[in-house]
Amino acid sequence: MTAGNLVQAIRDDREHGASELARQCLDGLADYARTIQVTDALVLKAGLIGLARRLQQARPAMAPITNLLANWLAAFERSSADTPEDIRNAATKAAEALIQESKEALSKAAANAVNLIGTGKTIITHSLSSTVFAVFEALAPRVRAIVTESRPPGEGRRLAAKLSALGITVEFISDQQMGIFVQNADVALVGADTIASEGTVINKAGTYLLALAARDRGIPFYVCFESFKCSKLAPAAIPLEHNDPAEFDPPELPHVEAHNVYFDVTPSKLVTAWITEARVFNERAALARLTSA
Amino acid sequence: MTAGNLVQAIRDDREHGASELARQCLDGLADYARTIQVTDALVLKAGLIGLARRLQQARPAMAPITNLLANWLAAFERSSADTPEDIRNAATKAAEALIQESKEALSKAAANAVNLIGTGKTIITHSLSSTVFAVFEALAPRVRAIVTESRPPGEGRRLAAKLSALGITVEFISDQQMGIFVQNADVALVGADTIASEGTVINKAGTYLLALAARDRGIPFYVCFESFKCSKLAPAAIPLEHNDPAEFDPPELPHVEAHNVYFDVTPSKLVTAWITEARVFNERAALARLTSA
Repeated sequence: MTAGNLVQAIRDDREHGASELARQCLDGLADYARTIQVTDALVLKAGLIGLARRLQQARPAMAPITNLLANWLAAFERSSADTPEDIRNAATKAAEALIQESKEALSKAAANAVNLIGTGKTIITHSLSSTVFAVFEALAPRVRAIVTESRPPGEGRRLAAKLSALGITVEFISDQQMGIFVQNADVALVGADTIASEGTVINKAGTYLLALAARDRGIPFYVCFESFKCSKLAPAAIPLEHNDPAEFDPPELPHVEAHNVYFDVTPSKLVTAWITEARVFNERAALARLTSA
Repeated sequence: MTAGNLVQAIRDDREHGASELARQCLDGLADYARTIQVTDALVLKAGLIGLARRLQQARPAMAPITNLLANWLAAFERSSADTPEDIRNAATKAAEALIQESKEALSKAAANAVNLIGTGKTIITHSLSSTVFAVFEALAPRVRAIVTESRPPGEGRRLAAKLSALGITVEFISDQQMGIFVQNADVALVGADTIASEGTVINKAGTYLLALAARDRGIPFYVCFESFKCSKLAPAAIPLEHNDPAEFDPPELPHVEAHNVYFDVTPSKLVTAWITEARVFNERAALARLTSA
């Protein structure tokens, strides 16, 4: 894949969550380092740094992309490699190490959620988070799920299929039923695309509604994420993605404008606990180190 | 249409709101009175009363059907008609009078909402309510609308088309975006299928989520309805409709059960004002006469 194609693919992807896309960026960067047809060391280095910076800008609402690529840039720029061969190796190794670190953080965050929630519970979730899926994987089949369709595009359908394959009993609902079904759950659990300052959750549109309904019904609302999802930015400084409304086939009519905002903002007052690879935070003040500038 | 077909048509209708269906019941009853091939007065009377009672049971979550048919039964049973001709006339006239009364109540309730809201505002709504549409009609084009798709089946698409035809500027969103767009509205306005005791709102699933988001954002949440939508029943005594999940095409998978609950329950604490043909109620206590046993 060319650099331009990689950036475009990351920008257009509506299937994968932020962590998964961040790993795809690193993987693409490693692939580019191995295969780019350049013989001059300086040109090679500049090409790799340029691609990393373009990938960082591709999805500004997804902190893991920004953060993991910043870590990659720091590691790569620290390296003393000066031959094309060494530069290719340094770039690839830095990417692979971060992919590994990211996967381990995901597993540890999921393990902390598993310890907190325990077996035999009913978990309601929205959207398809790889971290939340890892929690279900660890608890299967001694857990029940309530899964929202999560339109558009409806990634809840993919989650239902993955949970079904694990033998987990799933209640599948269209999004507007979440207010009814939340009271059948013991806990609401979501992932995050970004955690903004003070623990504000940026996640698939509808997450805020689930959090409101959980609070109103007295159901705990947990967010499980790797700490590289934390941004130092205030929520208002994070541009929410506006996607093509054609994704949900709106009517085309005079005076009617359709919108497709992908993320919504769940204020920290609605969050019962933030679960990371390091620990479970029950108060947003405790998150300060992760999300303050 | 035969009596059985009429009952089935009312039971299966997913397009129309509760008031509209109640009027269709009365209209069907009048049509049945005019056309049924019976010569015996007692059999005719019994047939009409039997049909009215079957229609009353067709949609237990829709108080207007129960209430308007109870009013029809009372008026019809009060009548001293004893020839087939007089019985047909009495049944038809009672139905026509109630249809007229229902339409006038709808207009007056909408007029009260228009007075409360005023021109130049942005109104967010969910589902397709004939009362809410009458409000938009009266304010057009000096009002803006935010319309949710309202799946399944998506009757917000029909509302968007009707508002477009009135020249009203519409922002059209998928349901899970309501938490984002509510803050662009001056007021949230919905209809109701039933108002249960103490002002609890039974309406299309998703209404509760809109009410929660409106409360969280400090946007007034108004419910506009004709007082024959009031039920003496407690919310828990009203069976919420479970429709065929096939309506939103859920995945068919082992261990996965899909649900399609049509109505949700919005507690009165989330309602800013109840608007009827009689007046605007700002406190649920004031509604007591309408909804207490």
